Amino acid sequence: MSKPVNRIYFDNAATTPLDPLVLEAMMPYFTDKFGNPSSIYSYGRESRLAIENARKSVAKILNAHPAEIFFTSGGTESSNTAINAAITDLGCRHIITSPIEHHATLHTVEHLSCYGDVELSMVKLLPDGHVDLDDLGRLLANSSEKCLVTLMHANNEIGNMIDLHAVGNLCKMYGAIFHSDTVQTVGHFPFDLRNTPVHFITGAGHKFHGPKGAGILYINENVRIKPYIHGGAQERNMRAGTENLYGIVGFAKALELATGEYETQSAYIRELKLYMMEKVKNAVPGITFNGDPLGRSLYTVLSVSFPKTEKSEMILFALDMNNICVSGGSACTSGADQGSHVIRAINNDPNQVTVRFSFSKHNTREEIDFVVEKLREMI
Amino acid sequence: MSKPVNRIYFDNAATTPLDPLVLEAMMPYFTDKFGNPSSIYSYGRESRLAIENARKSVAKILNAHPAEIFFTSGGTESSNTAINAAITDLGCRHIITSPIEHHATLHTVEHLSCYGDVELSMVKLLPDGHVDLDDLGRLLANSSEKCLVTLMHANNEIGNMIDLHAVGNLCKMYGAIFHSDTVQTVGHFPFDLRNTPVHFITGAGHKFHGPKGAGILYINENVRIKPYIHGGAQERNMRAGTENLYGIVGFAKALELATGEYETQSAYIRELKLYMMEKVKNAVPGITFNGDPLGRSLYTVLSVSFPKTEKSEMILFALDMNNICVSGGSACTSGADQGSHVIRAINNDPNQVTVRFSFSKHNTREEIDFVVEKLREMI
Repeated sequence: MSKPVNRIYFDNAATTPLDPLVLEAMMPYFTDKFGNPSSIYSYGRESRLAIENARKSVAKILNAHPAEIFFTSGGTESSNTAINAAITDLGCRHIITSPIEHHATLHTVEHLSCYGDVELSMVKLLPDGHVDLDDLGRLLANSSEKCLVTLMHANNEIGNMIDLHAVGNLCKMYGAIFHSDTVQTVGHFPFDLRNTPVHFITGAGHKFHGPKGAGILYINENVRIKPYIHGGAQERNMRAGTENLYGIVGFAKALELATGEYETQSAYIRELKLYMMEKVKNAVPGITFNGDPLGRSLYTVLSVSFPKTEKSEMILFALDMNNICVSGGSACTSGADQGSHVIRAINNDPNQVTVRFSFSKHNTREEIDFVVEKLREMI
Repeated sequence: MSKPVNRIYFDNAATTPLDPLVLEAMMPYFTDKFGNPSSIYSYGRESRLAIENARKSVAKILNAHPAEIFFTSGGTESSNTAINAAITDLGCRHIITSPIEHHATLHTVEHLSCYGDVELSMVKLLPDGHVDLDDLGRLLANSSEKCLVTLMHANNEIGNMIDLHAVGNLCKMYGAIFHSDTVQTVGHFPFDLRNTPVHFITGAGHKFHGPKGAGILYINENVRIKPYIHGGAQERNMRAGTENLYGIVGFAKALELATGEYETQSAYIRELKLYMMEKVKNAVPGITFNGDPLGRSLYTVLSVSFPKTEKSEMILFALDMNNICVSGGSACTSGADQGSHVIRAINNDPNQVTVRFSFSKHNTREEIDFVVEKLREMI
């Protein structure tokens, strides 16, 4: 099989290419429409209008009220804001989370438990990596303090999804605040926030072909918090700092595109994931899939563990040499794999090498054929 | 005099148009080079390289070490990070600031003094709006706690500048931490941080023809703080969240352009300011200038107070009707002028209407002639 000229990008859970239509929507704000949205003259008013239209569009798509949508610099800032506010402003003194959360959650709650007066509990996981709701119920029932439950909607490494309604209803029963890191699902999943028992969710534009540096925080209208970043009156006094105008416009446009094509795109990408599972299982003996890929699982993510050999240990580098972009279990920054806290939490087998494949609408079966063939050759 | 076809933009202290060369430098990262900088494959490494090259360039221009430069979402986040860290990580229990600081500073220190265990002092101002260094010295000398001094380099409304060395040396003498909001001077003023006694400074790209949503925090290598936004290992564990790759590239390019042209541009803009002072003084009787416009003052900003009349009260609206963009004393967001805390602090005369004119390299004497003629007609 000949090598494709272009790189094969199977790391769409890390980031996605910007949609050219999103860039087109952003362009006027890089050139003519540069006014500060807080300025009262015409230049400013047209920027303000662009932001408020973006907010309305995002709110409509998520079935939320525009006043519940706040633009931030990304998913990490959004989660930091929500988790800190639950402690500082909403009276939570006990945080319940899981060992497979993103670091934006885990490092924030660890900091609060070290430096604040906050108890920290880890909910148990079932063998397939799903959150044990019975254990969550026990933790909530036995807590003498008001709880914050922070659980991600879809895990970024293995794709496992929680049932927002089931978790939210448990939280409701015990008067807990519920934050969900939805960075992997906003833009990939239909939301109906008006009918979902959740207080905070987060989103990041670059996960669904929007811009980096732009995110949202949804704050349910029934909770009142103070800003995490203080200063000017932007975002109705909830997030200070001159707005990332292009980022906000791009976020909204990307969400419109992603939602408009949801039915066809999600079916197409799910099909790619199933095809990859089938192909790789047949091509490479001894592999296993992490999490619950055929069950309650995000259609974009497939986590594969290969038996550890000298060759499989070099798999990421070998794939890179072949212009194939995938990631290890962890988001390591240096090339020195320190192992993934997610994989360790669900399957602590040192004799495995884990690779995450994550797909987008731009991927094809031909790419999968090529990658699986390369994997077969390598291992 | 005929009306120019284009708008006249005299509000460059609020934001500036993006330089087309900056946009050109950002464009590859909106299209081909979209990799997540934390990914270890080629797509990721080229993004990482772009960020590290941007960091080196910014550090070189400011005469700092690259390890002292951290990219953030903007000046407000940078100031929040520095001020909070001084309290949380550096042991400061007494904040000394001035009543004319930007809200990114004032609202942050007010929050800390309300909810943290922190004393707050306001340094006195001299009649010309400059910080009274004798009073600052007394406050430092009389403090029983370790101090954070946070004073802006150039005031965004009246242009008054502090002497970073004088304030920094006072802080040094009393073991205080010194943060300066330099949002109005980074990109407009030569910095030599290696030889300046300051612990933290801040910058925002959109104030010097760079992108919105991108800023820096300089942290002197002698201070060690924890991140304000927790999560991934980005920015060497100091600022979590997928990097705003285009914003960072644009910030560095804008700073390179601004610094490369500093001598000629600053002389040109200073000349415009002096020309405006002369023209408006002759055209409109009874006006005064706020601050110290001919002394230690930023060359981009001119604050003018007009005697209050029925006509002058409508001046911002009248100028807007004539396609002239300026701002009132305050950064009011609604059109309902609540008055400026800066103007109130230096000159609490209710019988005045204040307008800030702020200039860039794109402005001309012809524009000033047109605006002054309009002012004369209006008042």
